[in-house]
Formats: sequence, structure tokens, C-alpha cells
Amino acid sequence: MSKVGIEQFNAIMRAELPSAADLDIYLESIAYGEAELVLPYTDHSLRPGGTIAGPFMMMLADVCMFAVVLSMLGEIKLAVTTSFNINFLRKPSETDLRARGKIIKLGKRLAVVEVSIYSEDDIVAHATGTYSIPPRD
Amino acid sequence: MSKVGIEQFNAIMRAELPSAADLDIYLESIAYGEAELVLPYTDHSLRPGGTIAGPFMMMLADVCMFAVVLSMLGEIKLAVTTSFNINFLRKPSETDLRARGKIIKLGKRLAVVEVSIYSEDDIVAHATGTYSIPPRD
Amino acid sequence: MSKVGIEQFNAIMRAELPSAADLDIYLESIAYGEAELVLPYTDHSLRPGGTIAGPFMMMLADVCMFAVVLSMLGEIKLAVTTSFNINFLRKPSETDLRARGKIIKLGKRLAVVEVSIYSEDDIVAHATGTYSIPPRD
Amino acid sequence: MSKVGIEQFNAIMRAELPSAADLDIYLESIAYGEAELVLPYTDHSLRPGGTIAGPFMMMLADVCMFAVVLSMLGEIKLAVTTSFNINFLRKPSETDLRARGKIIKLGKRLAVVEVSIYSEDDIVAHATGTYSIPPRD
Repeated sequence: MSKVGIEQFNAIMRAELPSAADLDIYLESIAYGEAELVLPYTDHSLRPGGTIAGPFMMMLADVCMFAVVLSMLGEIKLAVTTSFNINFLRKPSETDLRARGKIIKLGKRLAVVEVSIYSEDDIVAHATGTYSIPPRD
Repeated sequence: MSKVGIEQFNAIMRAELPSAADLDIYLESIAYGEAELVLPYTDHSLRPGGTIAGPFMMMLADVCMFAVVLSMLGEIKLAVTTSFNINFLRKPSETDLRARGKIIKLGKRLAVVEVSIYSEDDIVAHATGTYSIPPRD
Repeated sequence: MSKVGIEQFNAIMRAELPSAADLDIYLESIAYGEAELVLPYTDHSLRPGGTIAGPFMMMLADVCMFAVVLSMLGEIKLAVTTSFNINFLRKPSETDLRARGKIIKLGKRLAVVEVSIYSEDDIVAHATGTYSIPPRD
Repeated sequence: MSKVGIEQFNAIMRAELPSAADLDIYLESIAYGEAELVLPYTDHSLRPGGTIAGPFMMMLADVCMFAVVLSMLGEIKLAVTTSFNINFLRKPSETDLRARGKIIKLGKRLAVVEVSIYSEDDIVAHATGTYSIPPRD
């Protein structure tokens, strides 16, 4: 079971990641080691060619990784991304984006998380990230 | 010599990457295969611990790569990021961030660009990205 | 169903990737979009500290990605790796390594493949790669 | 000035990375934070299409990163690669490959190194890697 709830995570995001909250990104579901977030479609996320900007997908993926980490560790403030890799696979449709993240490995000092981003039923990007996590008791 | 000028690139950014423009990111210098951009420090870019959010650094790096590509190809609309990898090296100070990008290789269909991000004199992140570029005459 | 068989892939590997064959890497199972390969443990793969060298895990992951691509496209000679990213998660035990690969997306010009490497039941590395694939009819 | 010498590093490589030594990879020059290694061309490194296999380039890049780390820290046995990212840029010629590595950042627990691989005068691959380094006095 997730160690943070949906409302709790959305409040953390509003307080500590206001830029993600400004994009109206929200957590839709969360379980231990898994999270699903949505980036609602707006004209604001356009870029040349009418597609959603890569940086928004990176932000969505990064927040999703953060949710996955918190689902396993509870509310901690000192987890920081140390590396992030993303492949953009296809031009998204003009619709909401959905990020599905899951843990690959939770170690003592490092968490590795994978995120797939979907536009309707198509995978449009795939990211892997590592988080440095503070020592736990 | 760069195929786009500073004013021209900043106008492209305002028109086509409004989210980067909203962060007040601006191009400071550009030459053929090289570009330097600045992300001014604001409270808005904070995240837990008082540091600048990873996604903002990703956005800054991505826009810097775009500037490097345009410096060599001129104003094209169809260059898209296909992959992006970043290592976060150190917590930035509460000051402006500066991204310095340079081309690694410009091929027929792919450009590879490297970006280092500095906070004062310290390198705080290093990114590599690939751009798919449309066929040229 | 896979478009190449186990014996067929092992023969391709011996003919065209002799260095992988020299390590006695072999394909154990294959299905459409999925492949599982084994790198038998030998003293030769040691590195400081008695663990299996990172480059061997990279080779195992790369060959696994190649198998996944061929499972979907059949025997083609011109698929080449264009990018490769790996996170090393844990020191492997002194035992065989097992790579499980699956397709993330097969597009017209690009395939993205994910590979997890296991030492006994522990995941020890996770890799993502992109392959450029020749135009098909 | 480098904390390991050329003969010293080549001996370390023969003792601890025999697979790299088997490929006749050798260190050609080293300075504090910089190293240059050569992978001599042989038929053995062929792959489909007559080019040098990606995994050999990965091994060359990884060994080059290791040399860069040792140039700054001296002979240590516990530095391990934690992540590795490579972009393959162009098909190499049938000639030796040359890897030029330099430090991006040496921190307390992590070193980030960049390597460019050349075939004659052309850059054919570009890699970035992170090393976990043991605590120092």
C-alpha cells in the first residue's frame, strides 16, 4: 500500500512543486511502487507543429518518479533526481498525457524508476530516472 | 557564424515555446554550433530544500540544444528532440542558471548536442540530447 | 510469434557477433517482442571486487535488444544501435546473468527496447536502447 | 598531473580488466582528469555491415572513464560505474578507434566523465558515465 495518499501527494506537489501544479498535473492513482499522473491538455503546452513540448513531458515524468519514490518511502523532502533519461517515441495527439511509473529497484541510497507516457493508447515517451535517497533508519 | 540572431531566437522562443519564455529564459550569446542561455533565479523555481527544480534545468537544457541546432540550420520548425539524458551534479545556489551548449555532431538526420549548466562557477548539471532534423536540400 | 528461432538467432550471433559468442552468451527463449539471454558465469568476466564487469553486462543487454528487434522484423542485417543507456543497480553474485528484453515501441524507423538483467532473483542492471531500422516494404 | 602512470594503468587493466586487455586496448596518454585510449582495429571487432560492434565501443568508453577517474584519485579498486549513456553517431571506418575522456565533475561520492570516440578524424560515438567512488580521507 502506498505510504502517501492521493490528496496528500497533490498537496505536496502544490506546496513544493508549484510549477507542476501550475500545469494542472495531478496524481490519479498510487500504490506501493506505482503511480499514475495526468497532464491535462492545454494550448499552453504547444510547441512547433502543434505537439506537446518535450520539457512538459520531462516534468510530468519527473513528478511521476517522485510519486513512485514517495509511495514507498512516505513523505520525505530530501529525495533528489540524480540522473534522468528519456526517449521521445511519437508525436502526441492533442489530448491529455498520462504517465505510468513503477519502481525498478529501491536500494539503500538509490531508487531507479521507469515511466511510460501515453497519449490515448499510444506510448509517446519512455523515461528512466535515478533518485538519491537520504539514509533511513 | 550563427544562422539565427539573438533577437530572432528570443522571438522564436516567445512564439513557439511560451513556457520557456514564461520562465524568462533568454538567449545571451550564439555562434555557429554554440549557444548560451540564462534562466533567471526566481522563488518560483524552488523545490524541496530550496533548490531549483530539476525540470527547470531540463527545460533550460532542451531550449539550449534547440538554439544550438538553429545556429547551424537556421530557423526550422520540425527539429524535434528524440532523446535526452541529464546528470544532476550538485545543488545549485540561489542564483541565475547559465546553460552553455555546443554541437557534438551534426549529421544528415540527427544532431547531437551537449549542454553544461552552471550556477555561478560550478557545473550543476550536464545533459546530452539528440535531435531529429528534417531532410535538407 | 517470433520471426527468428532460437537456433537461428544463436547461429546469427556466432556468425556476426563473434565476441558475444566467445562469451558463450546464448538465447534461451524468444517470442514476438521479447527475448531472454544468458551470460554464463566465468572467471573471465571478473573485475575488481570479484564482480562481473560492466562492459559484459552492456554487451549482454545490447545482444538482447538485437534479439528483440529480430523477433519482430526477422533476420535483417542493417539494424544498428543508435543510443544506449544503462543503470547498474547492484553487484551481481558469482553466477550466471540473465537478460530479459521487451519491446517498448516499434516504429517505422526506430525501435526502443528495454532490458532488465538479473543475477539469481535480483535485478542488477536496467538498460534502454534505440535501434535504427532500415525502411521496410 | 595524473596520479597513475601509463605503464601502471596498462598493468591494472591487464590484471583487473582482462577482457579489455584481450582486445589490446591500451592507454596512450593520461593527465589529471584526462585520458586517451586506443582500440586497435581487428577483424574480431566486426559486426554486420563490417563496422566495429557497439559493445566494443562501450567497453572502450568504460575503460577510458575508469582511467580518467584513476588519474584523479590514484589506484583505487572500488570505483564502480553506476550509469552509462552512449550515442552512436556514425559508422566507424575499418581502422583503430581512439577514445578521449575528460572529467566533468569529481564530487565526494560521484564522478561524471565524458568520452568521445574517434575513427580517424570523425567522432563516431559520445558517452557520459557516472562512477560511484568510495569515501576518501
